[in-house]
Amino acid sequence: MRAVDLIIKKRDGGHLTREEIRFLVEGYTRGEVADYQMAAFLMAVYYQGMSDEETAELTLAMVDSGAKVDLRRIPGVKVDKHSTGGVGDKTTLALVPLVAACGLPVAKMSGRALGHTGGTLDKLEAIPGFRTELSLDEFMETLERTGAVIAGQSLDLTPADKALYALRDVTGTVESLPLIASSVMSKKIAAGADAFVLDVKAGKAAFMKDAGQARVLAETMIRIAARAGRRAVAWVTAMDQPLGRAVGNAVEVAEAIEALQGRGPDDLVRLLRTLGGEMLYLGRVAKDPNEGARLIQEALDSGAGLAKMKEIVAAQGGDPRVVDDPTRLLTAPVKLDVVSDASGWVAEIDGLVIGLATMNLGAGRKKKDDPIDLSVGIVLEKKTGDSVERGERLAVVHASSPRDADTTARAIQKAFRISAQAAEAPELLLARLEA
Amino acid sequence: MRAVDLIIKKRDGGHLTREEIRFLVEGYTRGEVADYQMAAFLMAVYYQGMSDEETAELTLAMVDSGAKVDLRRIPGVKVDKHSTGGVGDKTTLALVPLVAACGLPVAKMSGRALGHTGGTLDKLEAIPGFRTELSLDEFMETLERTGAVIAGQSLDLTPADKALYALRDVTGTVESLPLIASSVMSKKIAAGADAFVLDVKAGKAAFMKDAGQARVLAETMIRIAARAGRRAVAWVTAMDQPLGRAVGNAVEVAEAIEALQGRGPDDLVRLLRTLGGEMLYLGRVAKDPNEGARLIQEALDSGAGLAKMKEIVAAQGGDPRVVDDPTRLLTAPVKLDVVSDASGWVAEIDGLVIGLATMNLGAGRKKKDDPIDLSVGIVLEKKTGDSVERGERLAVVHASSPRDADTTARAIQKAFRISAQAAEAPELLLARLEA
Repeated sequence: MRAVDLIIKKRDGGHLTREEIRFLVEGYTRGEVADYQMAAFLMAVYYQGMSDEETAELTLAMVDSGAKVDLRRIPGVKVDKHSTGGVGDKTTLALVPLVAACGLPVAKMSGRALGHTGGTLDKLEAIPGFRTELSLDEFMETLERTGAVIAGQSLDLTPADKALYALRDVTGTVESLPLIASSVMSKKIAAGADAFVLDVKAGKAAFMKDAGQARVLAETMIRIAARAGRRAVAWVTAMDQPLGRAVGNAVEVAEAIEALQGRGPDDLVRLLRTLGGEMLYLGRVAKDPNEGARLIQEALDSGAGLAKMKEIVAAQGGDPRVVDDPTRLLTAPVKLDVVSDASGWVAEIDGLVIGLATMNLGAGRKKKDDPIDLSVGIVLEKKTGDSVERGERLAVVHASSPRDADTTARAIQKAFRISAQAAEAPELLLARLEA
Repeated sequence: MRAVDLIIKKRDGGHLTREEIRFLVEGYTRGEVADYQMAAFLMAVYYQGMSDEETAELTLAMVDSGAKVDLRRIPGVKVDKHSTGGVGDKTTLALVPLVAACGLPVAKMSGRALGHTGGTLDKLEAIPGFRTELSLDEFMETLERTGAVIAGQSLDLTPADKALYALRDVTGTVESLPLIASSVMSKKIAAGADAFVLDVKAGKAAFMKDAGQARVLAETMIRIAARAGRRAVAWVTAMDQPLGRAVGNAVEVAEAIEALQGRGPDDLVRLLRTLGGEMLYLGRVAKDPNEGARLIQEALDSGAGLAKMKEIVAAQGGDPRVVDDPTRLLTAPVKLDVVSDASGWVAEIDGLVIGLATMNLGAGRKKKDDPIDLSVGIVLEKKTGDSVERGERLAVVHASSPRDADTTARAIQKAFRISAQAAEAPELLLARLEA
């Protein structure tokens, strides 16, 4: 087998066999297939796409390129949740304790902030003492003791995916649905779960701007899961304005705790019920997603989720008192109000502008390894569909200097579109797909 | 400027500016643009094509990547001829002396055999003593003294083209018209001529199987020449059966000499008149291509071309007696007749099969640097349209061993299709284009 023949086969619209895909992925991982050949192959895939079978085989070849987490010690169905990334998406912070409180163990491997999107690990580190880097032994012990764990990847999972992603990033081949879907699913499958709940964001502040495209990505991921013998449910959800009100790190942890205290914003709580309900359904704790959603609501109402959050924080070395008193989280020295210069209704909030403003404030990373400031962020006081009076507060900027606060306030003002006509809160839950 | 942004621009169907193309080509030549980025870019070009302007800018950027031949010492318009390669194409061997005999100096840089196609340098080396590797000084002196020279490239012309071609070869991006056209034209322009006659072969034994595709390639090359301020004429010519009768090295030199002696096969002589006529027209020796063709015929009839051939051979260290007596060329020890097993008409001769059989016989190269046997080859006695009797000779194999001769004879037999219905000689000259 020669790499160039496989490139030409794909270039001309052919379908690669399992053996051919393994030859490329394994050869590339071992350095036998050159990076320029893989780059040409990826560009051919960009144009020609991949069949379901090819996409699944690519995913499994990447899974097999490295270590795999073995969760078989943990009884029952292991369900993982994945979001394709957005602005203000603190769902995982509240979802993991809620689902665990309902009796389903959750082993969550999360990532860090990059570009306009935040990262769960950074957010958690706004809790004094919280350790996100656990050894595999610590990870498994915490999971068994607490029924939940949220940490970074300490194992060398899917090295082929890491190498391919780095290559795609510099060769203009990121935006390919089968490549995106196989990258996500390879990491999820290697992390050991039996079933997946996928939150595929669509809109201005999402990777997929268009709901139709997001739906195709969701379908692709669902089909990979099915071919890999895993169950999966995907929800396409709106990501035009930020989710909830807080965007940053400490401010998002505070909002997640408020949600567990029963005081969360509508859209966040709705998403917690929906995704949590699906996790309980796939994990066989609930007979259907609706019953699952009811169990999540009960865990919110009873305070069981909040109690589990305290347990998780303590188990991972964090100060559990923040769960009762979020003012113990890191706070920024400067707070600046952003007020409306018109009366009317909030017709639109550009979540991408908010996300980038938050990154520029220091809460996110332009490049991997940039340092970040966990205390800064933005808290919206108005969301799309709300009425507003001239001079009323739209948002509060939490900044490290008056100058930063001022720059950010201007950006936020531009992110809001105030209309003289009444506007409605947009639909959050756009489509559900099940494997 | 970042390479990845230019890849994405091309990927999405954009047109690159002169500066952007120079950034890529110069960056790649200096090792600043990575080969994996260039590979992804080439695959994007494969799908999206290039505008005339982009193709011309790519060509000129490759020209500027290395040395250039300066022919300004030579008076008048310098005209070069290029063929895209075929089987039995010994045109250059007879064309250079004919055109030079008509008073137009010809500085010809030629290449070597690869795959099923032959190379002029190898053919010339079948003449005892003939030197094809000349220094630039020797090249210019021979040209000034003899009015003609045929040699290899001693200068480092178009290193960017060499590097890009090597990359295309292993990344499935060879078959792209703007990349093929810019590769050819960069070498031609760097070799210093003011005007070009292009012989674009179309058919079974050509790089372009389809005459329509060949025409598009010819148009692309013509337009590059025009944008680079050079005049050019292109002829699309048939390359289904071999050109002339001889395929190999010594056997092709013998046939070229026979043509100069006025005894050449019809198709070769016709091509010599046509391409030679165009060269004299572009070189302002003839007022139009028809007058040019008449001058070429005169040089054939008068023996002026033959005399010039003798001069060239002598000037480049070869034994000039071969021009009077081609039996002094290298000869193979074994000759085997291939006879027809049916009576009728030759409906088709597969030139690709003949070319590959000749290569396998040892006259060509599978890979660059393979050694070759200059004495072996195939001489056809029947061509498409000829009538044939069962038992009559179709061809003679010149081989180094009876076993090779036998294998080749079987292949040749399969290359001939004998029909019970009368067949006609195919059209040789398919289309003419002028910049």
